[in-house]
Amino acid sequence: MTSKIMSYSYDEYIELVRSFHGFPAPGVLIGGFMVDLAVKNLPEGVLYDALCETKTCLPDAIQLLTPCTIGNGWLTVLPLGRYALSLYDKYTHEGVRVYLDEAKMGPWQEVRNWFMKLKTKQEQDTERLYREIQEAGQDMLSLRPVKLKPEFVQEKHKGKVALCPKCGESYPVSDGEVCLGCQGSDPYF
Amino acid sequence: MTSKIMSYSYDEYIELVRSFHGFPAPGVLIGGFMVDLAVKNLPEGVLYDALCETKTCLPDAIQLLTPCTIGNGWLTVLPLGRYALSLYDKYTHEGVRVYLDEAKMGPWQEVRNWFMKLKTKQEQDTERLYREIQEAGQDMLSLRPVKLKPEFVQEKHKGKVALCPKCGESYPVSDGEVCLGCQGSDPYF
Ligand SMILES: [Zn+2]
Ligand SMILES: [Zn+2]
Repeated sequence: MTSKIMSYSYDEYIELVRSFHGFPAPGVLIGGFMVDLAVKNLPEGVLYDALCETKTCLPDAIQLLTPCTIGNGWLTVLPLGRYALSLYDKYTHEGVRVYLDEAKMGPWQEVRNWFMKLKTKQEQDTERLYREIQEAGQDMLSLRPVKLKPEFVQEKHKGKVALCPKCGESYPVSDGEVCLGCQGSDPYF
Repeated sequence: MTSKIMSYSYDEYIELVRSFHGFPAPGVLIGGFMVDLAVKNLPEGVLYDALCETKTCLPDAIQLLTPCTIGNGWLTVLPLGRYALSLYDKYTHEGVRVYLDEAKMGPWQEVRNWFMKLKTKQEQDTERLYREIQEAGQDMLSLRPVKLKPEFVQEKHKGKVALCPKCGESYPVSDGEVCLGCQGSDPYF
């Protein structure tokens, strides 16, 4: 029994993930159930932002299924290494946090092996892993209400910009006399 | 005269941006021309990663038009506040950097007003801004070859994971005795 993931059937969602993420990664599939659970536990019609506690896989589920993307600023990735996300009201900063709960993985040992990295990729029973993800759905997730601390709510940058006197490119004046790249963070040789 | 943006017509790209980003933001439209220019200047068939020097708008153009997303780890966002991106060979780390070049904006003053924040949203001539973006296409971009410093090439996390003794959630053991959230970075009250 598979419930839908937002407005998509499970198979439609797999195709969506494939086209965006490159392949139907287990983490993005589970992420679909996580987003769906979070959205269903928000008050209807609320305008929400998203916070994702890992860089791996989960941000893509959020970007595919909600209005929140990296580029529009409604999704913040805070790399804490936890497989968890929260959706919260843009104005009150209250919302819900959903995480993948190891304590609920008893019936789904291949998911647990994958999640806890107990097997190498070669040892992994991929077919069983995918079957368990679909069977488990939201049953291995946990949820709690949260309120975000103000320092973690993304502020839109509204300050002045100028041309950096060193590299000549536009940059936020609040960063200093020259741009952050010219201050030593330039990633290129 | 508008060239295509990757495999899309300009109008198709606008619709794609609308569905993902929420609205056809000027920055994502210009970003489309930037990605297209960068890809065309890579050797054919090369497997590339992406680095984006701003959090604003541009990451979405990269995610829509290349295989690189936040969640699959092929896109790194390094928030330097510069409207620039680079695509580089996954193995040699050599590639091209494309940036929006203020020095080339002479014929497109409304783009310049938007880019340098010289007008308020109310003063902005939106119709003219969109017309100029389409007219300019790649003519306000500059490009140079780059090679990335090793410390900016994203390393995939391959270490062990364990359950955090404090919050009980899975986390990378290399982060310490407890997870980063429990070390004080928890974003919630
Ligand atoms: Zn600079
Ligand atoms: Zn913890």
